Amino acid sequence: MTDSKMIHDKCGVFGVFGSQRAAELTYLGLYALQHRGQESAGIVTAGNGNVHIYKGMGEVNEVFADNRHLNRLSGSIAIGHTRYSTTGASSLINIQPFLITNRSQKLAIGHNGNLTNSYELRRKLEMAGSIFQTTSDTEIFLHLASSSPKRTWFNRICDGLKQVKGSYSVVFLTEDSIIAARDPQGFRPLCLGKYRRGYVVASETCAFDIIGAKYVREIEPGEVLEISTKGLRSVFPLKKQHHAFCIFEYIYFARPDSKVFGENVDKIRRRLGRQLAIEHPADADIVIGIPDSANTAALGYSEQSGIRFEIGLIRNHYVGRTFIDPDQGIRDLDVKIKFNPVKGVLEGRRVVVVDDSIVRGTTSMKLVKMIRSAGAKEIHLRISAPPIISPCFFGIDMPTRRELIASEMTVPEIEKYLEVDSLGYLSVDGMLSMPSLPNGSFCVSCFTGKYPLKIPAMNDKLRLEKV
Amino acid sequence: MTDSKMIHDKCGVFGVFGSQRAAELTYLGLYALQHRGQESAGIVTAGNGNVHIYKGMGEVNEVFADNRHLNRLSGSIAIGHTRYSTTGASSLINIQPFLITNRSQKLAIGHNGNLTNSYELRRKLEMAGSIFQTTSDTEIFLHLASSSPKRTWFNRICDGLKQVKGSYSVVFLTEDSIIAARDPQGFRPLCLGKYRRGYVVASETCAFDIIGAKYVREIEPGEVLEISTKGLRSVFPLKKQHHAFCIFEYIYFARPDSKVFGENVDKIRRRLGRQLAIEHPADADIVIGIPDSANTAALGYSEQSGIRFEIGLIRNHYVGRTFIDPDQGIRDLDVKIKFNPVKGVLEGRRVVVVDDSIVRGTTSMKLVKMIRSAGAKEIHLRISAPPIISPCFFGIDMPTRRELIASEMTVPEIEKYLEVDSLGYLSVDGMLSMPSLPNGSFCVSCFTGKYPLKIPAMNDKLRLEKV
Amino acid sequence: MTDSKMIHDKCGVFGVFGSQRAAELTYLGLYALQHRGQESAGIVTAGNGNVHIYKGMGEVNEVFADNRHLNRLSGSIAIGHTRYSTTGASSLINIQPFLITNRSQKLAIGHNGNLTNSYELRRKLEMAGSIFQTTSDTEIFLHLASSSPKRTWFNRICDGLKQVKGSYSVVFLTEDSIIAARDPQGFRPLCLGKYRRGYVVASETCAFDIIGAKYVREIEPGEVLEISTKGLRSVFPLKKQHHAFCIFEYIYFARPDSKVFGENVDKIRRRLGRQLAIEHPADADIVIGIPDSANTAALGYSEQSGIRFEIGLIRNHYVGRTFIDPDQGIRDLDVKIKFNPVKGVLEGRRVVVVDDSIVRGTTSMKLVKMIRSAGAKEIHLRISAPPIISPCFFGIDMPTRRELIASEMTVPEIEKYLEVDSLGYLSVDGMLSMPSLPNGSFCVSCFTGKYPLKIPAMNDKLRLEKV
Amino acid sequence: MTDSKMIHDKCGVFGVFGSQRAAELTYLGLYALQHRGQESAGIVTAGNGNVHIYKGMGEVNEVFADNRHLNRLSGSIAIGHTRYSTTGASSLINIQPFLITNRSQKLAIGHNGNLTNSYELRRKLEMAGSIFQTTSDTEIFLHLASSSPKRTWFNRICDGLKQVKGSYSVVFLTEDSIIAARDPQGFRPLCLGKYRRGYVVASETCAFDIIGAKYVREIEPGEVLEISTKGLRSVFPLKKQHHAFCIFEYIYFARPDSKVFGENVDKIRRRLGRQLAIEHPADADIVIGIPDSANTAALGYSEQSGIRFEIGLIRNHYVGRTFIDPDQGIRDLDVKIKFNPVKGVLEGRRVVVVDDSIVRGTTSMKLVKMIRSAGAKEIHLRISAPPIISPCFFGIDMPTRRELIASEMTVPEIEKYLEVDSLGYLSVDGMLSMPSLPNGSFCVSCFTGKYPLKIPAMNDKLRLEKV
Repeated sequence: MTDSKMIHDKCGVFGVFGSQRAAELTYLGLYALQHRGQESAGIVTAGNGNVHIYKGMGEVNEVFADNRHLNRLSGSIAIGHTRYSTTGASSLINIQPFLITNRSQKLAIGHNGNLTNSYELRRKLEMAGSIFQTTSDTEIFLHLASSSPKRTWFNRICDGLKQVKGSYSVVFLTEDSIIAARDPQGFRPLCLGKYRRGYVVASETCAFDIIGAKYVREIEPGEVLEISTKGLRSVFPLKKQHHAFCIFEYIYFARPDSKVFGENVDKIRRRLGRQLAIEHPADADIVIGIPDSANTAALGYSEQSGIRFEIGLIRNHYVGRTFIDPDQGIRDLDVKIKFNPVKGVLEGRRVVVVDDSIVRGTTSMKLVKMIRSAGAKEIHLRISAPPIISPCFFGIDMPTRRELIASEMTVPEIEKYLEVDSLGYLSVDGMLSMPSLPNGSFCVSCFTGKYPLKIPAMNDKLRLEKV
Repeated sequence: MTDSKMIHDKCGVFGVFGSQRAAELTYLGLYALQHRGQESAGIVTAGNGNVHIYKGMGEVNEVFADNRHLNRLSGSIAIGHTRYSTTGASSLINIQPFLITNRSQKLAIGHNGNLTNSYELRRKLEMAGSIFQTTSDTEIFLHLASSSPKRTWFNRICDGLKQVKGSYSVVFLTEDSIIAARDPQGFRPLCLGKYRRGYVVASETCAFDIIGAKYVREIEPGEVLEISTKGLRSVFPLKKQHHAFCIFEYIYFARPDSKVFGENVDKIRRRLGRQLAIEHPADADIVIGIPDSANTAALGYSEQSGIRFEIGLIRNHYVGRTFIDPDQGIRDLDVKIKFNPVKGVLEGRRVVVVDDSIVRGTTSMKLVKMIRSAGAKEIHLRISAPPIISPCFFGIDMPTRRELIASEMTVPEIEKYLEVDSLGYLSVDGMLSMPSLPNGSFCVSCFTGKYPLKIPAMNDKLRLEKV
Repeated sequence: MTDSKMIHDKCGVFGVFGSQRAAELTYLGLYALQHRGQESAGIVTAGNGNVHIYKGMGEVNEVFADNRHLNRLSGSIAIGHTRYSTTGASSLINIQPFLITNRSQKLAIGHNGNLTNSYELRRKLEMAGSIFQTTSDTEIFLHLASSSPKRTWFNRICDGLKQVKGSYSVVFLTEDSIIAARDPQGFRPLCLGKYRRGYVVASETCAFDIIGAKYVREIEPGEVLEISTKGLRSVFPLKKQHHAFCIFEYIYFARPDSKVFGENVDKIRRRLGRQLAIEHPADADIVIGIPDSANTAALGYSEQSGIRFEIGLIRNHYVGRTFIDPDQGIRDLDVKIKFNPVKGVLEGRRVVVVDDSIVRGTTSMKLVKMIRSAGAKEIHLRISAPPIISPCFFGIDMPTRRELIASEMTVPEIEKYLEVDSLGYLSVDGMLSMPSLPNGSFCVSCFTGKYPLKIPAMNDKLRLEKV
Repeated sequence: MTDSKMIHDKCGVFGVFGSQRAAELTYLGLYALQHRGQESAGIVTAGNGNVHIYKGMGEVNEVFADNRHLNRLSGSIAIGHTRYSTTGASSLINIQPFLITNRSQKLAIGHNGNLTNSYELRRKLEMAGSIFQTTSDTEIFLHLASSSPKRTWFNRICDGLKQVKGSYSVVFLTEDSIIAARDPQGFRPLCLGKYRRGYVVASETCAFDIIGAKYVREIEPGEVLEISTKGLRSVFPLKKQHHAFCIFEYIYFARPDSKVFGENVDKIRRRLGRQLAIEHPADADIVIGIPDSANTAALGYSEQSGIRFEIGLIRNHYVGRTFIDPDQGIRDLDVKIKFNPVKGVLEGRRVVVVDDSIVRGTTSMKLVKMIRSAGAKEIHLRISAPPIISPCFFGIDMPTRRELIASEMTVPEIEKYLEVDSLGYLSVDGMLSMPSLPNGSFCVSCFTGKYPLKIPAMNDKLRLEKV
């Protein structure tokens, strides 16, 4: 992903039941899920009748830099959330998990996804007297559950889920349980693991590996799973629907060492690279990937094509949020700050550059220039996904349609715009044939503009944002 | 107040309507009200269809130390709040103003006071599906207003106020108005001022002086006042009740340069000192006050008694929250850090020490020791208020009854405990005859144990805290 | 001092010998000396062959806000320094104490005062190869001692002192002793105390009171005193000279509860007020002081004149360095932020306002306006010192001569400029007759322009600053 | 480098002459040199008769996070320094550049290297009266230059260099020039570039690339180069000596995109990998490198051996200094925090793992376990350098000899200790034949124990540290 500021998953979620110092495990789990959101993090814990919360802006290790915060989060039950959010002080109110009280019982939530009927639900709830303290659709889950006349949180949550539409992989914390749920189409991933005598849930399995938990299975689409001292309890309260797993998890979001939707991300990413080489061969000396996310696809391209893989760009490890652009008029400094080209590798070579997507095209253009000025003789840009032409409504933050270069230009136009010698995108069919799951299991709406769910008129989204 | 950590008003509130950069005026107003709460501060502004909020832990000038925060708070309408709160990260959620949305309309609130029926209101609201995101009774105002079927915030707020009992001086901000309200008994102060072409409201008039606003009048007990582009609109939607102005505002809380309940605080405080000299004369060389709050009463004592006023204790200006007690076994360091006795004044003298209250007695004891070790020959402690024997349920944070020294000991016992040569408290009647208002206008429950409102069983309060 | 940003003593010094955790005592001592400099603080400790240092910008309790810093400063010997300094990052290098090594022996210094021959000493040392790492004249002491061929630091320091001219009250720390020294004219104060089995030295005795140390005596002008495990050792290596104690310590700098140059500051400050009433009586209703520094003189004025003392201005306790001026065009906000006038006291009254000095006159003018707008009918400004007409070269930071209002205007002109009904300054003779010490013991050069030491051409000072 | 906390170059240096806002260029240059030291950074600038300095603990973008610091550093001449340093507050005094004044002229220095005769030079200087304010050998350069009777800094520096022994690549800043110097053996790199009409010097060429400067040449061993408005002026004041370029720059320190000692680092690192494959072939399925530093050597190994290169470990980008180890008893958490193994790549495979060095062996052991537990069937560890058996005295921070695993164990013993299936180190001869420069040009003392300079008795070093 060269335009790395352009596309963001909104979240990673994590939950633990049944471990002393559950907060520390959640901290580590969130650390492993950091790539799913770096702008805020929070943990809620429960135990012995008490509930504790701490959250803040920043990466997990920044928010919890003072270990007293972790120490205060006692209890053997915990959920955590890490999130991409818009900047600005006002977004403080939107840091998850959210924690509320109703009927003297506490409930917390961490959510990955995006509701499509949030505007109408919110209007209905507000007419009935509910007050909203955040601008996030996630708050709706809490109002719906609280409005249910049922007696337990588990039943009230199930009640509430019947009304929401859209994508959600959620973990709830009650005072004595974790409740994990996934929408019936299964847009976003969520999996179950075993940690010693307790259980863990996480967006990706890499969060299990860091703490030494064992992968058990996916939370099923449409499943609501309660983890308590009575063990596991699973129900499917919602109408069954066609699956719509987000293919972008394979292309870019998930960590290569994770298992997502039941498959190793690394393996599928490799196959995408191979298929790319079949669809768009190139007459070149070396193959490089844009680090780190596109390296695996680049290795696949190399294997298939027989063209040697090289490390032509080094990713800088010292980029912090605080980097000052001293405005010296240095060309393309933002890209130079992140990557440095290895002249010894690129000079005089015909180079296949593999990336996983092009969003606006501006960063790609700068990278192409950088590679060219390091001496590359030819640049053949290969994208291990189809052109992105339509925004996502299920939990990925993208620019508007008009900002998506592939929605405004044809491939030859992009090729010219980026000043590359050739440009090849993977086909939708090629992409869909790489996972073992059947084609129809995936949501590919960002590549096709066809959404697996009815999307309310565009302004709905805007109206919610304004609220 | 020697036990200055022992008694706290919970809040100061401020509001502006009709000034460009209302946030800055609110910042200055809160600064002037800082003595009413130093642990958190916040401002909400509205204008041009946008609402902005910023709040944080700390004094006003710490929370807004980075002026970008103030700059972002655009709009010509603003409310602000400064507050004493319990420590601990969890209290972050309770920083006021609170800001919510209902029916796509925003509403913010800043509250000084304490509701007495919050537990039952909260239970009722929760049963109806309302979710609580704070542990503060202030959130109840927002739920009640949102539950009303009326169409405007003004009417919905009036509706909501019919259900609450207790003390409240509140300012609401809507997207196009300020609404100020005061409970029918008028426990806490709230006044209206004129600033150029707009209006301001504040807990005390000292907040008007700093910005150059003109005092207009008190918000009346039971009044709900809307300030909008249409001007002022005042209604009295609630049943009339006996007034119960908090006498402690005169004794300790309010700044001497403020007008509160229609009278100059300084003048009344002076009269309290005079009356104290009448009730408890002393054969002494000098009169000193515990700075800064008791100096005015000490001057009154001096005037009446003819005994010379002196400055025998200097208050240290460099005490910060971060002061480390290095635990050198230095006796009474906490008091030494705050005050230093002037030996030249105290040595060999018989000293009348005027203070405005004794809470637990521990700090008073240390001060007495300090004054003694600076050479005072005799110490005659005079308190410009009656003994505090009962906690407050209307907005002042006090220790429990058992921690109040006067609830556990007689005056002679306290005299002995503090090791003073004599001790005199002002009488309730003496105190009540000092303001111009009739005796019956005041709440003196902390001195008498008789509350002007039914107080639910004690555990209600505790239950709310736990929520 | 109304123009409180205008005149600064440059420093407070403190030293301890022979107490476990000497650092904590030094911390408390510096806290008590905080009024002598708020912009940086530092502590050096020695013990068991190790020397530790920590210092930083800010008030003492800010610099040591993290108690790990204090904990690391082990050893039973310590010196500390608190200092006013010019702003700007570059001044980091000038934070005292300075710590150096020479012949594998460490030496640290904290200095209050100002050398008058620093430029020539520095030039000489630099020609001989010495390098300067600060822009402070204090560094010169270290170079001179290091250049001495003598064997012990004590003897090398005595050697060095023979070359310096000007004012200095210094404490040195070696690996096994404290060495305190005072210039032969005794410009700045320095005193010796006993703490349990060890000793302390400090700029003022208030630093003894906070830790419970006992005052022993002044360090004599011209004395060099070593405190080590062998006890005290005192020598007078320098030529005897006329004393020139800084009279400004009595007028403004020292804390009223300190003993300075052998006398209680409070008592002298009281007498200055009395003398002021004799020299400049007024037909008025009340006397007020500019808090806190002028209150004692105001009490003296009140006693002598029989005019009632009142508290007409309250000093705000919540002023932090970070206060933002939101630039609302509010008149004289800087003064309003610091003080608030008590209308009930001032309204309709003829007021004697006692202050201890006028520097530029701008702040005085704003205060006069503030008091006038609070309703004062007449304002009679009385200054408990003579007009300041000449800058100080012995350790007080003042504006240049041209910025001193009394150097540019006559008293009637100042009276008119400040818009007061009358203005009276104390006479030089009146001032000098207040302390018990003979007149000739004091430096009054800021009031007379006659310096007790030859001052090199003005530009010398500037040249040093530039270095 | 798996033991990345074990070996550190002490510094990166950078200088600019002749560019408006030289500070910003230096900031960017230091950012590119960040891999040479992350614990402190500083910049000194000169221009228009003023010299400015700012420095602090942390990475460059942390130290200069507030851009006002950069803005204050005006002037068209600048030097900067980034440094690894021991932790602890006391090291604040050692942050470079150092800035001093002598004969009213300022001089600043940034130094990469280590002097071997610092103890005796320091003793000599101290006997002559010099005072030391840091514990760094770098300060010696400043004293020596200041002691010289010559008239210009250039000549005085040349004078001083005649006395020092050891390694140094230094940049000096005077008020009107940059002076760069390199020791006669040339241990550490230093190169010259052209930036528009001015010049730049830097430890590595990657600092030129980020600002768009052009590489001109190496500063020669023994050269002292002055850059001023008169252009370049080069002298060789020191006795010629055998070259002793640090081979470790090629193996690990320098960035692969840099040119060092006249050659592309990437190319040599690649050849080291190839040679390693020749000397130590393996029967395996894939080759992986420890990211990022060993990836290039791994690619070389892959090319030579024909075994497929794979990315088996992902380096985590979210590791901050503040990471808390929550002490959950999670095995090898430190390694898990840094790297995550890609199961899909490693499972069931026979893996060649290429790393660039083994220091203590503890981290290597953890990595081996991690790779094994990700499913690797066999692990063949290959090191692209010979065994490290002896500490460095020329600017690299290493553990003591006894902590170096290869100094205590034979290769078979290490193989067993690390539990790898086979272990192969590159030979010294193999290593030396990879660069184009003749064998004798390099210092390989850490691999052989034979030092190109006499090293004083070990305790000298210790004594200096104690000072």
